[in-house]
Amino acid sequence: MPQGQPTAVPEDGLTTRQRRNRPLLVVHTGDGKGKSTAAFGLALRGWNQGWDLGVFQFVKSAKWRLGEQSVFEQLGSLHASTGAGGPVDWQKMGSGWSWSRKAGTEDDHAVAAAEGWAEIKRRLAAERHDLYLLDEFTYPIAWGWIDVDDVLETLAARPGHQHVVITGRRADPRLLEAADLVTEMTKVKHPMDAGQKGQRGIEW
Amino acid sequence: MPQGQPTAVPEDGLTTRQRRNRPLLVVHTGDGKGKSTAAFGLALRGWNQGWDLGVFQFVKSAKWRLGEQSVFEQLGSLHASTGAGGPVDWQKMGSGWSWSRKAGTEDDHAVAAAEGWAEIKRRLAAERHDLYLLDEFTYPIAWGWIDVDDVLETLAARPGHQHVVITGRRADPRLLEAADLVTEMTKVKHPMDAGQKGQRGIEW
Repeated sequence: MPQGQPTAVPEDGLTTRQRRNRPLLVVHTGDGKGKSTAAFGLALRGWNQGWDLGVFQFVKSAKWRLGEQSVFEQLGSLHASTGAGGPVDWQKMGSGWSWSRKAGTEDDHAVAAAEGWAEIKRRLAAERHDLYLLDEFTYPIAWGWIDVDDVLETLAARPGHQHVVITGRRADPRLLEAADLVTEMTKVKHPMDAGQKGQRGIEW
Repeated sequence: MPQGQPTAVPEDGLTTRQRRNRPLLVVHTGDGKGKSTAAFGLALRGWNQGWDLGVFQFVKSAKWRLGEQSVFEQLGSLHASTGAGGPVDWQKMGSGWSWSRKAGTEDDHAVAAAEGWAEIKRRLAAERHDLYLLDEFTYPIAWGWIDVDDVLETLAARPGHQHVVITGRRADPRLLEAADLVTEMTKVKHPMDAGQKGQRGIEW
């Protein structure tokens, strides 16, 4: 854990408070487990602060993250009924984005990914959420479905105080360059190496 | 993400189902962020499966993880009132374990850590929880406050189907050897390197 003290003070003309409250671009990458899990843990902390959360799941099959989705939707309901925490909007590309149910696009992943990013751009411009969790967002970028230059320009110019967390392997080097916080999750040992399949509660 | 297929099938006489449902020892280590956050994300998934969660915070100051504690306590209340998810027992060494409020021990961290581990041993023997999250547990081991041989023997002999997740830097090599799943979180870039202090919702 960092000790809470910066190792250098930049000459950027900002006060400590201004610097502290700068919106962050966070990237979790690497071949190990925990990239998305840590991102959802971060979102949990934000929810507790009353943040408006937007979760956008790219790529993942319907099976994955159902546990997180269930909990965050319950937390969103808790917010609606008691005012605790913040609102949660959970969007999954795999089952069709809620704002885009066009016939014929369900299987066109490149189009669906681009539509997802277009919506995220609209929401960033409108300052819709406090925290955007773009889960597995590195893949549609790596596959050329979403233009990394557009992502970098959009994120650099995003208004207000909107945090963005991006997960996935093979993050574009320029995305890492642009990020404020990058953690690489490295697989040291995994039970599947010893012939064990994933299990309920651990993998999903 | 693993593709869900083991890379080798061991000759251990177990069926796939038996192997799949083997209780896991998970370790999140390394100098990067996300070790605890990913562990809490894992616990969230377990809660959603109805698991009984025991969280034991070693070392951390009172400020840290308050967000997670608040959310998990709300989830525990949700379980108590609606039956959703599972029960949650959150224990913090920093403010004194709930079962041990002896005068004079608050500042004796070595004694407090040993008492925490003794209680975890009792609970493991009684099969009290489905998932034990031992946050920052590597430190009292590294500092010699808790005997690593005792930890290894206790975990190897734990009865039933109890998952254990351990977080912290400088994990003992034998703990990594004994673990089923090890992820190392590596710091690639952190805003504190650029003179930015931690901020609400991101760091706590």
